[in-house]
Amino acid sequence: MVVGPLTLQELSAHLADSGLPNNVRGEGNPTLTGCNTIDAAGAGEITFLANPKYRDRVPQCRASAIILRPDAASIAQMPQIVCDDPYQALTLAVVRIHGYRRHPQWGVDSRASIAESAQLGPGANVAAGVTVCENVVIGKNVILYPGVFVGPGATLGDDVLLYPNVTVYDGCRLGDRVTVHAGTVIGEDGLGFAPVGGKWMKIPQAGVVILDDDVEIGANCTIDRATLGTTRVGEGTKFSNLVAVGHGCQIGPDCLFVAQVGIAGSVTIGRHVMIAGQAGIAGHLEIGDDAQISAQAGVNSSVKAGTTVLGAPATPVKEARRRYAAWQKLPDMKDRLRTLEREIAELKAALAQMQANAER
Amino acid sequence: MVVGPLTLQELSAHLADSGLPNNVRGEGNPTLTGCNTIDAAGAGEITFLANPKYRDRVPQCRASAIILRPDAASIAQMPQIVCDDPYQALTLAVVRIHGYRRHPQWGVDSRASIAESAQLGPGANVAAGVTVCENVVIGKNVILYPGVFVGPGATLGDDVLLYPNVTVYDGCRLGDRVTVHAGTVIGEDGLGFAPVGGKWMKIPQAGVVILDDDVEIGANCTIDRATLGTTRVGEGTKFSNLVAVGHGCQIGPDCLFVAQVGIAGSVTIGRHVMIAGQAGIAGHLEIGDDAQISAQAGVNSSVKAGTTVLGAPATPVKEARRRYAAWQKLPDMKDRLRTLEREIAELKAALAQMQANAER
Amino acid sequence: MVVGPLTLQELSAHLADSGLPNNVRGEGNPTLTGCNTIDAAGAGEITFLANPKYRDRVPQCRASAIILRPDAASIAQMPQIVCDDPYQALTLAVVRIHGYRRHPQWGVDSRASIAESAQLGPGANVAAGVTVCENVVIGKNVILYPGVFVGPGATLGDDVLLYPNVTVYDGCRLGDRVTVHAGTVIGEDGLGFAPVGGKWMKIPQAGVVILDDDVEIGANCTIDRATLGTTRVGEGTKFSNLVAVGHGCQIGPDCLFVAQVGIAGSVTIGRHVMIAGQAGIAGHLEIGDDAQISAQAGVNSSVKAGTTVLGAPATPVKEARRRYAAWQKLPDMKDRLRTLEREIAELKAALAQMQANAER
Repeated sequence: MVVGPLTLQELSAHLADSGLPNNVRGEGNPTLTGCNTIDAAGAGEITFLANPKYRDRVPQCRASAIILRPDAASIAQMPQIVCDDPYQALTLAVVRIHGYRRHPQWGVDSRASIAESAQLGPGANVAAGVTVCENVVIGKNVILYPGVFVGPGATLGDDVLLYPNVTVYDGCRLGDRVTVHAGTVIGEDGLGFAPVGGKWMKIPQAGVVILDDDVEIGANCTIDRATLGTTRVGEGTKFSNLVAVGHGCQIGPDCLFVAQVGIAGSVTIGRHVMIAGQAGIAGHLEIGDDAQISAQAGVNSSVKAGTTVLGAPATPVKEARRRYAAWQKLPDMKDRLRTLEREIAELKAALAQMQANAER
Repeated sequence: MVVGPLTLQELSAHLADSGLPNNVRGEGNPTLTGCNTIDAAGAGEITFLANPKYRDRVPQCRASAIILRPDAASIAQMPQIVCDDPYQALTLAVVRIHGYRRHPQWGVDSRASIAESAQLGPGANVAAGVTVCENVVIGKNVILYPGVFVGPGATLGDDVLLYPNVTVYDGCRLGDRVTVHAGTVIGEDGLGFAPVGGKWMKIPQAGVVILDDDVEIGANCTIDRATLGTTRVGEGTKFSNLVAVGHGCQIGPDCLFVAQVGIAGSVTIGRHVMIAGQAGIAGHLEIGDDAQISAQAGVNSSVKAGTTVLGAPATPVKEARRRYAAWQKLPDMKDRLRTLEREIAELKAALAQMQANAER
Repeated sequence: MVVGPLTLQELSAHLADSGLPNNVRGEGNPTLTGCNTIDAAGAGEITFLANPKYRDRVPQCRASAIILRPDAASIAQMPQIVCDDPYQALTLAVVRIHGYRRHPQWGVDSRASIAESAQLGPGANVAAGVTVCENVVIGKNVILYPGVFVGPGATLGDDVLLYPNVTVYDGCRLGDRVTVHAGTVIGEDGLGFAPVGGKWMKIPQAGVVILDDDVEIGANCTIDRATLGTTRVGEGTKFSNLVAVGHGCQIGPDCLFVAQVGIAGSVTIGRHVMIAGQAGIAGHLEIGDDAQISAQAGVNSSVKAGTTVLGAPATPVKEARRRYAAWQKLPDMKDRLRTLEREIAELKAALAQMQANAER
């Protein structure tokens, strides 16, 4: 695919070819050498307005062009691409103008340590300081950055991309086009200890981790191998950084986990589940398809498909909001309660007085 | 110790020899080549039922044998080992059938960087890409995976096992049989800065970290060195992944910390304390022996021995549950309060009317 | 600067020279070879009392000298340095007696992989197993520990210090005197995926990370590159460990972030903002200068300059404390509400009775 600068008119045509109807407005047909944010874009760059919150920054914007929605077209002075989905248009523009990362070319560096019994497919790009252990099987066109460790018997599919200092423990299996960012650890032992006389006896962690095709894992994550069987992350699922997945979890396809999410052991998660930052899920629960877990949520019971939960303990969003609204009124409720107690005391006294009068 | 397949009868005898009374039930004496979960186990594998939650999965299970409690024995059709502690039996079975990890054998790879003044005990297994700095002292039979860094003056006891890309800063001391999983950092500088005229002046972090015998640390953890003196983790304590320990903490023996736990500086923790995932403990607190800290708890005051705390701010479990029960009723309480206010207004009006009538 | 042992009188003079008025009290002028905590200090060591909480440990302290405030001077028996800011005095004492870390001297190890097009300033100290890619520009006197990776086109200023296994992705820029602790990743791709037909399409992450002069980052942190433009950390800002910063954040100078803090994408943070452990900030918010975010806070709306917020959702401290006080009374409030309902029912009945009597 062609990558590099093009004119606004050419970009418009490219978006249309990619299935995104759009119009060019304004005068001029600038050549676009980069994409940038509204605040930082300068001459030769194209920017975009998707979040209305940034609308009032458009007049000061110095970009050569902007992508925006029809209802916002009037606020910009520079040449525009007008379409219904500026974010999707921007995505296509970034792919077309910047393209994806170009990796260093190492071939298979002679200073990599590759065991004799390991199989390495054609097109491998393996840096110095990589370790590939006995009986590893690796597909075509893999890229292994320096400091990557692939343990005995592990398998990597075609086009796997492991950034610096990624560790894959023994026996783990990564599908095609799996990408793992720097420092992440796949398949370490989970917290598998049995209590024996007040001490913790280590249970061999005999299982593995499987990452299915097109999984992308962020930096410095940790995914425990199963004690028995597999810990699995489904096809197309994407993690951000510092995510911890416990032993034996089964995570479905096309999920999205934000940074610092923690999943305890033996959790089953459906497809297209979205988990926001710092949320945690307790062990042995089931999270249904398309569920959404909010940031910092503490999930301690299973979540039904399609449900959004908030807070700790995590609660379906409608009930959580009712509780939160009441919680905001809590000091006020306390005051009102005190007022009521006083009023009731007064009423009782008044009533007693009336009864006394009536009996007289 | 022998590791590998054996028959069900042999396994039963092995469990009995290990101090776990049990009975074999059902027909046949299958050879067991592996242990697996109820859902995943197949022919030749033994599974177990410890958590009653998985009881209804037993009828569909395709394992060749199962370990379960006497009260569950009737639900399984396959040959069984019946005992009071299926989890402990399974642990022993996994050790016997799968055994612990077999590590690659590197000897002392000539591409490791080992300072001349470093002392390396017999039986060392040191990979390429390991760095051992000046004045390091290392015991017998250590295993150092690729990318391990052992800083100047650090000491490692016998049988220490450091997985790939573990960093041990200068002067830190690891006891015998300490295991550290990939990417973990031991002894980095803590957040030791003094405010000087609106800037942060770095305080030299002159202390170290000591990990006592039989400590096991998960992947991508960080344990700060002390500013002065030591940060210490007691004998037999086990951490999961992404745990952060601040400078100067004193952690007792036989504790268990789940993933993403964070301990601020100068915290003192007793023996056999269990801290669940994502919990945090503020600085300078004391946590007594056998305390249990629940997941995501925010501990902002010291916790007495034997106490279980929940929530943020962390509260003893009984009181926390009372508050939570009330909190669930909060929207309802708000409604009831409004009703009471209306009723009191009505009562007042009625009373005023009666008083007016009485005075007439 | 001179580093090493000195006498108490010499230390007192050194503090005075450094702008910290102080007096020596007590008999003797011990030679001080180290600084240590009250509990651990022994002969030849000086300790300090800053936190009044540790006051009752002073009588048992075996240090040869102590630094404390005038109002605490009477409780210690050993020779003292009395001054208004013991913590600052201790900082200066640690710098003077212990000094900062002395690093191994590697020169430029021949086993480092340095691309031909990379520029390396004078005084470089580069270990075996370091990778410096094409078109990297590095200033004077940098220290790169083993396993460090500096991606294509990145720039490092003078006196940059990268501990083991730090990864700097392509194009990122580190200013002078930037320090990054082991295992941290700078400039990995953020969670930039566009939803296309139920799948996640990767958006090229075309931006970079800039760490300004004198930034120090702890161990195993992750700082996302911007999708477009830059993620920036301002001059003199310090992070502890396991901190996650999302793509496109703009963080001001002289901030302090404690361990496990998580900042979502496109957050703008002012100068001298302090964020305590495990706190999280949602995307696209603004945090004003000198704001303070408490531990585990969940910030879901912007925070004004100078404000302290607590809890989740984060709330200004005064209101948060009122709510918390009410929350502690919640079970009690529930009981009082029930009592009121009963009393009102009784009042109603009594009133009805009186009305019936009056009408008779």
